[in-house]
Amino acid sequence: MRIKLVGIVAPSARLDPVVAQQVRLIAGDMENGPHLLVHPQCHLSDGHFAGDDEARERAFLDIANDPHFDAVWFARGGYGSCRIAERVLDQLNDYARQKIYLGYSDAGFLLAGLYAKGCHVAHGPMPADLVREGGDAAVQRALDWLNTADAITLEPSLVPGVKTVAFNMVVLSHLLGTPLEPDLADHVLMLEEVSEHLYAIDRLMFHLTSQPAIRRVAGIRLGRVSDIPPNDPEFGHTPEEIVRDWCRRSGIAYLGRADIGHDAANKIVPFGGISGATRH
Amino acid sequence: MRIKLVGIVAPSARLDPVVAQQVRLIAGDMENGPHLLVHPQCHLSDGHFAGDDEARERAFLDIANDPHFDAVWFARGGYGSCRIAERVLDQLNDYARQKIYLGYSDAGFLLAGLYAKGCHVAHGPMPADLVREGGDAAVQRALDWLNTADAITLEPSLVPGVKTVAFNMVVLSHLLGTPLEPDLADHVLMLEEVSEHLYAIDRLMFHLTSQPAIRRVAGIRLGRVSDIPPNDPEFGHTPEEIVRDWCRRSGIAYLGRADIGHDAANKIVPFGGISGATRH
Repeated sequence: MRIKLVGIVAPSARLDPVVAQQVRLIAGDMENGPHLLVHPQCHLSDGHFAGDDEARERAFLDIANDPHFDAVWFARGGYGSCRIAERVLDQLNDYARQKIYLGYSDAGFLLAGLYAKGCHVAHGPMPADLVREGGDAAVQRALDWLNTADAITLEPSLVPGVKTVAFNMVVLSHLLGTPLEPDLADHVLMLEEVSEHLYAIDRLMFHLTSQPAIRRVAGIRLGRVSDIPPNDPEFGHTPEEIVRDWCRRSGIAYLGRADIGHDAANKIVPFGGISGATRH
Repeated sequence: MRIKLVGIVAPSARLDPVVAQQVRLIAGDMENGPHLLVHPQCHLSDGHFAGDDEARERAFLDIANDPHFDAVWFARGGYGSCRIAERVLDQLNDYARQKIYLGYSDAGFLLAGLYAKGCHVAHGPMPADLVREGGDAAVQRALDWLNTADAITLEPSLVPGVKTVAFNMVVLSHLLGTPLEPDLADHVLMLEEVSEHLYAIDRLMFHLTSQPAIRRVAGIRLGRVSDIPPNDPEFGHTPEEIVRDWCRRSGIAYLGRADIGHDAANKIVPFGGISGATRH
């Protein structure tokens, strides 16, 4: 499937119009690149959110259910997609099920629910990543993946035929047991985190690895855990030691590192694996 | 049951020996007050924790399984009880099942698992609360409850015959789906939180109220939500508005406020209600 028209919506926090314009310019400079349509909802503001729940829900459905769009690109994370996820999932039409959905962080709530509904979703950079150091490379990577599914855009450990998903730890922890939880049996589960204390990482790994559903994954890979606030006292273990320890306790295979995270190097992870959401 | 000997253990973070000594003096000044034994493990230190997992596990079992003790009082919260909870729950003897367990915050992981095993547990102040402003009143309240179960120590909305539990929001969120999760059907669920952003409170309430198991509670009461870091931008809703909203969405009755929280006014909530863990 050739991606010609990409709709950008913001189910969580607001996207700066200047950033949106810069991302459109990057796409415009690409040879045969996709055309980007930034839904005006992206720039609404309602407290913490890019417009109230109804505006965010409607904008998502405007793009997802419209046959003219080939992909839905989540504008940024922050917080808020879980507030509309169940309602939008109940209103998807057949066009929505044929699209690609791309984002990460808070967008993981929607990625999870969309994947559970059989949609094609991928964990990867978002327009708002442009403001990160080196963020233009992240935005370009997402656009290149949408455009050609070039292997260089993909998380390097992906293997054809091996089902994979990627989540922020807090987001996955908070969707377990809800209607958004997908069946992750036999999937390689990639996890990343940002701005959480090491004790909170440990607590998250307790929660995740103590779930019968998570114990059915094929294994866990650890992405980057960045911007960790100081632990008082010293926690005494690195993020990788923490993840290895909980994998050992729970009988889940620890498979090594994953090239994902809240940073410009964040690679693309199509849910279900590279014979799934990609156009290979 | 008359509480004569109380053992203090620290399944999470370390208790300052000076604080422990002051709490023993308060108990010593009571007429017919309980005798307190502070397990030496409380003062161990291993990174974030009051000794390594094995030391904390052994200390808990030393007190819980010993027939001389009538109650186990958790020294303080912090983080760490979930790391030993499953192992200690598998090793409880009949004496452990006859005791009272008192604490809150991170100790909620153990309270939950002990309650699921049929033990008598209560949410209430801990020795380390002494260092709070007015904390001597919190410690005195806990000792008075252990001593006489005086009604003035209890959370005032408790009604005989109505099952009740109380949890820190993050702790309950992180034990859902794990072997520590108790059956909360038909219970009034009291929730409190400290040091979480309003957006995180909202996300926690999504997680909690989206669970089929939590939708079977009799209703939710909101304790205090304190020390909230600034939200950027303004979240736009108070903690009570957030909890009311998620109760409305999920069909759970919102029953009003609860007199619990991370503060000196924190009242006692015997799990199962006041005909349960109390000695009425």
